[in-house]
Amino acid sequence: MDNVRPLIDVALIHYPVVNRAGDIIGSAVTNLDLHDIARAGRTYGVDTYWVVTPDARQQELAGQIVAHWTEGYGGGVNPDRKQALSRIRICGSLDEVLQGVGEKWQRKATVFATCARPARNTADYADVRGRLHGGEPMLLLFGTAWGLAPELMTAVDGMLPPIRGCGEFNHLSVRSAVSIILDRLLGGR
Amino acid sequence: MDNVRPLIDVALIHYPVVNRAGDIIGSAVTNLDLHDIARAGRTYGVDTYWVVTPDARQQELAGQIVAHWTEGYGGGVNPDRKQALSRIRICGSLDEVLQGVGEKWQRKATVFATCARPARNTADYADVRGRLHGGEPMLLLFGTAWGLAPELMTAVDGMLPPIRGCGEFNHLSVRSAVSIILDRLLGGR
Repeated sequence: MDNVRPLIDVALIHYPVVNRAGDIIGSAVTNLDLHDIARAGRTYGVDTYWVVTPDARQQELAGQIVAHWTEGYGGGVNPDRKQALSRIRICGSLDEVLQGVGEKWQRKATVFATCARPARNTADYADVRGRLHGGEPMLLLFGTAWGLAPELMTAVDGMLPPIRGCGEFNHLSVRSAVSIILDRLLGGR
Repeated sequence: MDNVRPLIDVALIHYPVVNRAGDIIGSAVTNLDLHDIARAGRTYGVDTYWVVTPDARQQELAGQIVAHWTEGYGGGVNPDRKQALSRIRICGSLDEVLQGVGEKWQRKATVFATCARPARNTADYADVRGRLHGGEPMLLLFGTAWGLAPELMTAVDGMLPPIRGCGEFNHLSVRSAVSIILDRLLGGR
């Protein structure tokens, strides 16, 4: 990181997202989204991994999983996992995330969303990497299910380009997408 | 890919691998390892994703999951997932993988293992990427649990460097590690 600590957060949105048909839905929190994204986040220096769901029971479930690994038996037998999952914060809405991020850095973070489809206002990975290295606080939004609901886009400053391998197939899990994007923005080369 | 189709396979080893204490164990096949790695593999042009376990019941379970998405209901409702999981082949040992890969390409593939810890005989991502673009067939080995058993190293031609973010923490899921390494070797830039 060229001696500048990155000021970067990741938020995984469970509501509002869209389903295959484009309807607004809420998705379920999954155990492996918590673990895999927390582990990738810890590896690349993500400060807070925000897990966003307004559903009280889902918040409780996510909290129990995190507590097992940070305060319970799991953290004792696996301190690496404890380090990773201790970066998780569970909250109810993107507004709460934006408020928490603003209070933490004492300024507004630049919000990037990710999309499997090409979009307008698309940034470039090298440019965003440079801005992170320069100390600009950032928040990356990731959607579960078929992606972020359009209404969230009013809070978004720019889009990260879709991840392409070879050809047009682009059907990565959100766990893979977060890992690859963090590596592109923050990976040691 | 500069117009050269990559000749690349991925193998996920469930036996022999090591546990936390370094004992040789066999790990269980998991649904999400099948899905996430198949989806990343399809995105980056992996030809075959080999799922390696000698346990007949585990092979049967993995086969049922794959069949649901390639021949059953799942493939009908989600053709992208069908495309991804149709690249999976289940087999009993690394020797079977090596034989299958050799027959497919009509020559020996270069075998790279991956390791979270620094190792001797370590290649460089840019170099391996260049060799892949030049048409050299390759097989990437990934271990489940705490990693590949030492006995597998006799089949390995070189190691890929550990993935570093910022600092020394390196505790990615195998799903994240596969995704990041495929992006480093094959991602469109």
